[in-house]
Amino acid sequence: MGETTVKQFNQKFLDAAAHGNLEDLKAFFGSVDIDVRSDRGWTALMFAARNGHVEIISALIEKGCDMQVMNASGQTALDIAQFWNHKDAASILSQHKENVLFDQIHNYYSLNPLYRASDLRKEESTLQALKKNISSKFILFEQQKPFLLPPEGERKRYKFALFSCDELPPSLLEEATMVFLGLETWEPSSSAWFALDVKENAAGPATQVYPQGLFVTPFPATMQMEETHAGIFAEAHSILCWLERYRFCPTCGTRQTIVEGGYKQTCTNTGCSSHKGIHNTCYPRVDPSLIMLVVSPDKKMCLLGRQKRFPPKMFSCLAGFMEPGECIEDTCRREVEEESGVKVGKVDYHSSQPWPFPATLMLGCIAYARTDTLKIDKEELEEAQWFPRAEVAQMMAGQHPGGLFVPPKQAIAHQLIKSWLASSSSHL
Amino acid sequence: MGETTVKQFNQKFLDAAAHGNLEDLKAFFGSVDIDVRSDRGWTALMFAARNGHVEIISALIEKGCDMQVMNASGQTALDIAQFWNHKDAASILSQHKENVLFDQIHNYYSLNPLYRASDLRKEESTLQALKKNISSKFILFEQQKPFLLPPEGERKRYKFALFSCDELPPSLLEEATMVFLGLETWEPSSSAWFALDVKENAAGPATQVYPQGLFVTPFPATMQMEETHAGIFAEAHSILCWLERYRFCPTCGTRQTIVEGGYKQTCTNTGCSSHKGIHNTCYPRVDPSLIMLVVSPDKKMCLLGRQKRFPPKMFSCLAGFMEPGECIEDTCRREVEEESGVKVGKVDYHSSQPWPFPATLMLGCIAYARTDTLKIDKEELEEAQWFPRAEVAQMMAGQHPGGLFVPPKQAIAHQLIKSWLASSSSHL
Ligand SMILES: [Zn+2]
Ligand SMILES: [Zn+2]
Repeated sequence: MGETTVKQFNQKFLDAAAHGNLEDLKAFFGSVDIDVRSDRGWTALMFAARNGHVEIISALIEKGCDMQVMNASGQTALDIAQFWNHKDAASILSQHKENVLFDQIHNYYSLNPLYRASDLRKEESTLQALKKNISSKFILFEQQKPFLLPPEGERKRYKFALFSCDELPPSLLEEATMVFLGLETWEPSSSAWFALDVKENAAGPATQVYPQGLFVTPFPATMQMEETHAGIFAEAHSILCWLERYRFCPTCGTRQTIVEGGYKQTCTNTGCSSHKGIHNTCYPRVDPSLIMLVVSPDKKMCLLGRQKRFPPKMFSCLAGFMEPGECIEDTCRREVEEESGVKVGKVDYHSSQPWPFPATLMLGCIAYARTDTLKIDKEELEEAQWFPRAEVAQMMAGQHPGGLFVPPKQAIAHQLIKSWLASSSSHL
Repeated sequence: MGETTVKQFNQKFLDAAAHGNLEDLKAFFGSVDIDVRSDRGWTALMFAARNGHVEIISALIEKGCDMQVMNASGQTALDIAQFWNHKDAASILSQHKENVLFDQIHNYYSLNPLYRASDLRKEESTLQALKKNISSKFILFEQQKPFLLPPEGERKRYKFALFSCDELPPSLLEEATMVFLGLETWEPSSSAWFALDVKENAAGPATQVYPQGLFVTPFPATMQMEETHAGIFAEAHSILCWLERYRFCPTCGTRQTIVEGGYKQTCTNTGCSSHKGIHNTCYPRVDPSLIMLVVSPDKKMCLLGRQKRFPPKMFSCLAGFMEPGECIEDTCRREVEEESGVKVGKVDYHSSQPWPFPATLMLGCIAYARTDTLKIDKEELEEAQWFPRAEVAQMMAGQHPGGLFVPPKQAIAHQLIKSWLASSSSHL
């Protein structure tokens, strides 16, 4: 291509970003420099941020664009989105910015752009006013199943159907279990988000507003959501499951009342000892769990196993719940030795991921084995074996001759394996 | 000193270790080379390991002795303790060995030497047999207060009073809430440990066996325990508090039954939905909490705050519970901004600590601030401020001119501050 042609080619790519034309944009991926600048130093990301095109921003970030570059006025894409008041775009950019800029690993289900505004939970009158505010957004669940808009276009991601209070009958608003999820920004005047959970067949009005919408079984459908919506789902689903499963006071067996926007339950028995002091019986559960990629003593292999419930031919990291009185290293060494007979030495923390089924906190680690003899606990694992690096790379790439594969990138196990492959390339 | 005198001096130090004479041993600290060898290459640690002197081993480890050195036969202290079947000594050495050898930070309450043997929990007949086995050890609680032997000697540490089954009346063994804590080693034939929790005034027999023993309020007394006993306390206390506070099924309000050695409760209502599938209502809670040392943008100061319940003049790291749907970085940024107004960028995981009041998992982080303007949430914090490095060093050393101080070394907050001071010495 001549110089003029290259310029035209680049300009078409930037135009696609500016106009929010996702399919046109993607046609350039692989041939265009994703960080190419306009004459004024604007990148595709900046143009998308200028016009609030959230899907374009996500696609560019996914392709690995540089989010820190500045235009001739010294603005980053985030600065531009904030200046033009595109809040969703700014949320994505600021969340990603922090994780990318500070070299933090970002796992699926953790990109919740809402500011939880926990101080508002105690202000009942504020919450009531927000409930009636036309700018508030409601997402709907039917017995903890989210009401989603089916995937459309090339990205094939589910999204929440968003309702305003005047699109929902007052009776539904009154009767549903409600959770205050947070505000769109730190500004107290910004839009509030609520989750509503209704009983079966109580959701006719939802399909009147969104005829294409549907209540879906959360897993695995929510693994294919827009990432910010997956983060909001994680918060809402965990709390709703807790409200459903912890309706009675564990200390005395009396019915509990929901308070503080769904983030607390109190016992209706005034004589209950849960009213003296602060007790975890009143607050949502989060169950810490360890997931670890075990590296062989010679560092050339990793240990992957299969639980019975896995799809055929899928192998993943070992995992197990933490027990009271354990630190991370203890749990890791205990679980690995119990399940595989392998003794673990050093344990390196990698990253964490909320896993909202119902409320697990996955703590991902790389564990260095001191021994390699396997003694599999068949109760826990159907199978486990040491895989050499090259074979794991095939499994990651979907190129394994025997069809073996690892979990998808949304799972922290995938990220642990990917990190190890990247860090161990020198051991080839 | 002449060469002969040095040799005699060293020999007396080694003799003190071999004979378990703690006070003599300590008199040498500061003047002797703690890793000095005998003619056959034995260190003080090896002599103590040979004879199973647990207190000597702990004191030497605390002074930073080298645990990895070998004698002329190629044995480490751990090898020696195992060879001579000193199980407590081997436990301490192996736990410390893993953490020290692999450069892992070891926090108080996490040095539990027991092997939890979770597979045995489901074998009711095995547990019943272990309960009647004369080599099994029982520790006692009265309404979750541990029965301890008061501190004696120079080390001033509480210990559990240990009972065998024939020292306790059958009625107490029958009526107490019982938790199977684990085995002393991986060998199925090794001694089992149980915790027993009795009602108030049901523990007369305990003081008959140990007249000097007493039931103590767990905090802060258990901060002054032998470290291995503190680890066992952490496991036992968390589970007993859960059994006490979660006696009713949260899903339907019916009474639960304790099964699996205290590690599970099942609903006695056969129609309860908790019987379909696996639910966290049946398992002990562990509440993950974040504790973070926030470092200023110029890296020269750190942010410390005071909660109202703190002792006067004590400052510590900011902290807060994780919420459902959060990853560690999210919780850290949310808590710090909510409590202090400071925006956090990169978050580095440091170490973890079980905090058994009742069952918190402290996840310690170093958080790097992007802003330094403070806006304190007076509901959460009485006070918070940036402290320069030199002042923090004074607070750590108990040398602060205004009498300010930080939590003791048993608290992970202390370890976070210590790590930052050590890593930031180049910023002076
Ligand atoms: Zn109650
Ligand atoms: Zn039940």
